[in-house]
Amino acid sequence: MNPASSVSDPLIRHLAEILGPGGLFTDAQILAPRLVDWRGRYQGRARCLALPKTAEEVSAVVRACAGAGAPVVPQGGNTGLCGGATPDESGAAVLVGLTRMNRVRSLDARNNTMTAEAGCVLATVQEAALAARRLFPLSLAAEGSATLGGNLSTNAGGIQVLRYGNTRELTLGLEVVLPSGEIWNGLRALRKDNTGYDLKHLFIGAEGTLGIITAATMRLFPLPAAMTTAWIAVPDADAAVALLNLLQERFGAMLTACELVSEAALELVLHHFPESIRPLPEKTPWYLLCELSGSDSRLDEAFEEFLATALETCALRDAILARSLDQAERLWHLRENLSEAQQREGVSIKHDIALPISRIPEFLARAQALLEEHFPGVRIIAFGHIGDGNLHYNLSLPDREANTALLKAQPRVHCLVHDLVAALDGSISAEHGLGQLKRAEILRYKTPVEMELMRAIKKTLDPLNLMNPGKVL
Amino acid sequence: MNPASSVSDPLIRHLAEILGPGGLFTDAQILAPRLVDWRGRYQGRARCLALPKTAEEVSAVVRACAGAGAPVVPQGGNTGLCGGATPDESGAAVLVGLTRMNRVRSLDARNNTMTAEAGCVLATVQEAALAARRLFPLSLAAEGSATLGGNLSTNAGGIQVLRYGNTRELTLGLEVVLPSGEIWNGLRALRKDNTGYDLKHLFIGAEGTLGIITAATMRLFPLPAAMTTAWIAVPDADAAVALLNLLQERFGAMLTACELVSEAALELVLHHFPESIRPLPEKTPWYLLCELSGSDSRLDEAFEEFLATALETCALRDAILARSLDQAERLWHLRENLSEAQQREGVSIKHDIALPISRIPEFLARAQALLEEHFPGVRIIAFGHIGDGNLHYNLSLPDREANTALLKAQPRVHCLVHDLVAALDGSISAEHGLGQLKRAEILRYKTPVEMELMRAIKKTLDPLNLMNPGKVL
Repeated sequence: MNPASSVSDPLIRHLAEILGPGGLFTDAQILAPRLVDWRGRYQGRARCLALPKTAEEVSAVVRACAGAGAPVVPQGGNTGLCGGATPDESGAAVLVGLTRMNRVRSLDARNNTMTAEAGCVLATVQEAALAARRLFPLSLAAEGSATLGGNLSTNAGGIQVLRYGNTRELTLGLEVVLPSGEIWNGLRALRKDNTGYDLKHLFIGAEGTLGIITAATMRLFPLPAAMTTAWIAVPDADAAVALLNLLQERFGAMLTACELVSEAALELVLHHFPESIRPLPEKTPWYLLCELSGSDSRLDEAFEEFLATALETCALRDAILARSLDQAERLWHLRENLSEAQQREGVSIKHDIALPISRIPEFLARAQALLEEHFPGVRIIAFGHIGDGNLHYNLSLPDREANTALLKAQPRVHCLVHDLVAALDGSISAEHGLGQLKRAEILRYKTPVEMELMRAIKKTLDPLNLMNPGKVL
Repeated sequence: MNPASSVSDPLIRHLAEILGPGGLFTDAQILAPRLVDWRGRYQGRARCLALPKTAEEVSAVVRACAGAGAPVVPQGGNTGLCGGATPDESGAAVLVGLTRMNRVRSLDARNNTMTAEAGCVLATVQEAALAARRLFPLSLAAEGSATLGGNLSTNAGGIQVLRYGNTRELTLGLEVVLPSGEIWNGLRALRKDNTGYDLKHLFIGAEGTLGIITAATMRLFPLPAAMTTAWIAVPDADAAVALLNLLQERFGAMLTACELVSEAALELVLHHFPESIRPLPEKTPWYLLCELSGSDSRLDEAFEEFLATALETCALRDAILARSLDQAERLWHLRENLSEAQQREGVSIKHDIALPISRIPEFLARAQALLEEHFPGVRIIAFGHIGDGNLHYNLSLPDREANTALLKAQPRVHCLVHDLVAALDGSISAEHGLGQLKRAEILRYKTPVEMELMRAIKKTLDPLNLMNPGKVL
């Protein structure tokens, strides 16, 4: 700790008393990685970094900050994509890291629930479930660093939403430190509880602006006994949606994932990961990566039968069923390496959108026409969780200079794409939240009534506007 | 309409103008059935009955009432069990019935969503889904009269929660008239949307105290191709929970219902419905009624195999698998006729509780011991959705005079049972809500922090406390 600041700043002294050794830092080197976001887009400053170990410590920290009029910025694994956990440049905020609150408090296998603290890394939560022969199905790219608190605050999605739902649907109860410093213990392990307003839903997805989540009771599931994966070629987006519907009708809840990948996206991965193999010989505009899981040992057969029939009826062009776990993993790598492939390719303008599934083909056609008109030669990398209506839609120009010019037009690009999304009753942020990135833009797409409701709730819970200000609203 | 009151009450005149012919009633005979609740426990009075046809009319009605300082009591099918839709005795309230808002506005089979108005009877919503070859899985006893708005306001459960979730989990978007009269259009058909606070969850389960739900966008599901039902005898409650876990591990999401029925409850149904048949020859303390559904045509075989193994390993005592739809229905009738059987038997003290599933055996043992100690000879009728941890736990004494005395002790009985439920981290209202019935009692079991949060939200949205006052809080 920098002795000079600890002497001059009474709040820092107070926090140091509350947190004890290892609980408070002002050293610039320690703070630095936490003051910039995952994508390197936002750079902030903070008064200090507080690392509480218990909900009581978080409570005391929040009270102390409130007393000193200091904003609080909660942070988990700092893997968010909208700058929601990065303080602003004022340096007034106390950064509250939750990573020391990392205990799995309890696990009740018979009740299929687990209570874990907000600072638990997601992968740890998954492992704890596995050790009890249960599945915690939240799974996303950043799971080695992202924390449960962050997942809750952003209502994280991931690849298994189709079957298990978002973080919101997986949550049975929360423990939250309110902006007043009071601790609300709403930890329940019940699937049915109609005793008043369901308060947990205020904090889930609120991106730390209404309080600090310190622990949660989450649902667990049985481990699937069998899993089968296929890569499927379809002639167009309509066929992709139609096939998704057929899969849902035939397999219901056994359909655990359905990802859409464009040929352009596939080519990008094959280019940057030369060890990967094109799954099917014929190139088609779109592919689906589908996974079934369940307890039926004849899942492979059933899937094979389905694919054969779909081929006969021209519901698909071609398909390959993974014959081993290794093969399945290689198919998944194609999808998982897309982010990295894009990063290696260069900067692109990114969109994380949601649409009613039935309107995806229309969006793809209209967006492409629109963008090619405004930005001839534009390269569209489209892929995503078609089963949830969630697309990642990323644009760039192959030529480096032209791309730089395109990036300057980013606000206009977003406007074109997002206006179309809104016209098709979609959402401009399917998974990643608003954070700093989209808090202004969202005003274009939300009604005044809705914004007013949100502000009223914010004002009620956080009248001093000290809880992660400048985010969401 | 009574000419005298319409002349003297300017609010009634104003509402009549807004609503037009067939939209406003003051006739005592028309109001009467709507002024008493389903169980005949609460009797209220109202200024008039308003039956708006559109959200705009609801909005205008709410504004007019707010202007006149008149409370508003929203009502659907009036099938609630806690008096939540019954006005108080003051006669000041305007009863707003939603039953004329009964259109299915749209259905998107490819997106698996449907938007329906709050006044749609639940059975109608189910039929509309079926006509589009989809399943709307919310299913409960009152579905011939209960409306979607009521289901949403009470976060109704039902028999398929195990697989499909409560009404809350089935809801993607809402249209709500706020206490200010403003219409919040939050109708979305998206499974992923992280653009701010998830406001719909405030209104779901709020029992009409934060606004009037006028329409909702709900999730649909594929129709299951196959269904199989079994009645299973188990030696004790521990075995019931263990078997439930085995079923979940083996069948996962294909387990669509799992109901617990005690021998005493079964005997009651057999007694009052003499045409029904005891499914198994041997009497055991507990039975499970289980249903699997899915697209696997070999579901029967798989279930039979499972039951045979469970018999061998003594995980169950005996079981019978329904061999026809007719047989399955007769098994379900045993469970469904329980409410009626209890009604014919006489009055009992009822509890609608939730517990962590792992604690159900402990509850049953301790509650029985406790009640037998305080009320020797007490008859316990216990049954419910064990898969969700939800039990109906109803008490009476066989002798009529003694039962009358017991009923006088109802508050003490509730206290004993609910204190035990709370000690086991359960809920005193799993399905039915708080309404008028439990709004005082809940204070015993909620922390001050939680009650304060709820009151703060109520005050923010409804500062004049005109929206269904005297309910929930």
